[in-house]
Amino acid sequence: MTSFLKSNIDAFLPVINDWLHRLLPSENDKPELVHRAMRYSVFAGGKRLRPFLVYKAFKWVGGDGDIIFPPACAIEFIHTYSLIHDDLPAMDNDNLRRGKPTCHRVFGEAIAILAGDALHALAFKLLAETGNAEIVYETANAIGSNGLVGGQVVDVEMEGQNVDEETVYYIHSRKTAALFTASVRIGAILAGASEKQLISLTNYAKNMGIAFQITDDILDIIGDTKKIGKPTGSDIELDKATYPKVIGLDKSKKVATKLIDKAMNSLLNHRDNRIFVDLANYILKRTN
Amino acid sequence: MTSFLKSNIDAFLPVINDWLHRLLPSENDKPELVHRAMRYSVFAGGKRLRPFLVYKAFKWVGGDGDIIFPPACAIEFIHTYSLIHDDLPAMDNDNLRRGKPTCHRVFGEAIAILAGDALHALAFKLLAETGNAEIVYETANAIGSNGLVGGQVVDVEMEGQNVDEETVYYIHSRKTAALFTASVRIGAILAGASEKQLISLTNYAKNMGIAFQITDDILDIIGDTKKIGKPTGSDIELDKATYPKVIGLDKSKKVATKLIDKAMNSLLNHRDNRIFVDLANYILKRTN
Repeated sequence: MTSFLKSNIDAFLPVINDWLHRLLPSENDKPELVHRAMRYSVFAGGKRLRPFLVYKAFKWVGGDGDIIFPPACAIEFIHTYSLIHDDLPAMDNDNLRRGKPTCHRVFGEAIAILAGDALHALAFKLLAETGNAEIVYETANAIGSNGLVGGQVVDVEMEGQNVDEETVYYIHSRKTAALFTASVRIGAILAGASEKQLISLTNYAKNMGIAFQITDDILDIIGDTKKIGKPTGSDIELDKATYPKVIGLDKSKKVATKLIDKAMNSLLNHRDNRIFVDLANYILKRTN
Repeated sequence: MTSFLKSNIDAFLPVINDWLHRLLPSENDKPELVHRAMRYSVFAGGKRLRPFLVYKAFKWVGGDGDIIFPPACAIEFIHTYSLIHDDLPAMDNDNLRRGKPTCHRVFGEAIAILAGDALHALAFKLLAETGNAEIVYETANAIGSNGLVGGQVVDVEMEGQNVDEETVYYIHSRKTAALFTASVRIGAILAGASEKQLISLTNYAKNMGIAFQITDDILDIIGDTKKIGKPTGSDIELDKATYPKVIGLDKSKKVATKLIDKAMNSLLNHRDNRIFVDLANYILKRTN
């Protein structure tokens, strides 16, 4: 990670974590159990990459002020809801996430399902509070049956199946890239982005999102369990549809590199693109 | 049911069902499995009571045109999503709903969870497409951890526990009345309702919603399995927090009657309130 990216992330993390704290219901508010579960999963770790994208896209377009933080938190809440549901016994049946027991392991399945549902609803409440229906649409469209949920459906369906590259691309572009794309788009829209800026950011986030998932798949094979916070090899165990499974490790790295190049090129003719370039490079080389 | 109410419902049902068909993704669109599951659950029956409230509140305030149908469908999608998740093995573990196997019995747990999540997202997409962020807020607020989901959390927590009337009221007002209230409010808001109209409709829907849930609890004890579409006695089996459990059948009926009176009184000084009065009376006397 470049020192420029690191200093930006270091400045952002305490701010966004403070906003996440403020916008989540208190553990003392009824019903306490679901609020505890929501907070547990949101604060179980996480790079806050999606809110960072919301924020940086907003600033890049020229947005100013704190109005961006509730929508940025909304995207993190959606990300957390999707992880809680993905980890459920009926889905990936994961016991660990970011080095901690998964939500259903701590609170039971019923509360985990409901904590996910509550984070889903809270996200839309925060998005609606901006008064901007367009960002609600962008987000809802990105996470429905043709987006995030659709990717997860095919991911679950394809376990143990023979898959081709097209199918893995389908899963990754929906399960991961769709929310990355929505993140930059809602940040940009709230700052009054031009169509040209929106297209450039969309291409950036889409390609980077798929590359991010490929590096995730690669780390599940060659990564360090301690750094990742969950046992490696779980994709192979569940026989998941991944790039390494379909085209091998070496070719997967090449595809990721190509996608990161594409991502960076989409912002080539724009000024002040350094944060996005550094982030894309980091995604490619990340070890956790 | 009065013939006035019946003719209104008979006119509404084919129209709303047609809209529901149009707004749900096709079973031929990828990923087909989750689209089949979404459609299965939406068309497994249902009185379409919530969309009817959206529509009638809209008309009552003076709204006109087809713009009300997508938001009305959105509310039905949210209702369906909540039923799919409530029926899951980790929650109420119901095998039958409206006389048909529940979603997870047909499609498996993973797809049922995801079909619920997809309906949840689709609802917000449709609400956002109206361009009105206020109705998005109303809905999100009604279904989060202080609304629908909160009611379900306490409902699950209180199984087999000693409960008081206050707790049952807490559950019913969130699990059922919150979405009834959002239904009339979004219909009214989209028609440009006055504050006075909004307050009257809110009081109507809130009281009627709780009464609706009490009659549901009563029917679970004395109802006809065939008419209800699921075995009676499931509340007693799970030792659910219900009015009959806490205050007995007779007193529950009295509470429901009182709430229905309150609901009707809230619209007493408004013109053209017949549809709401007849609906409230029907709720009290319903047998399914």
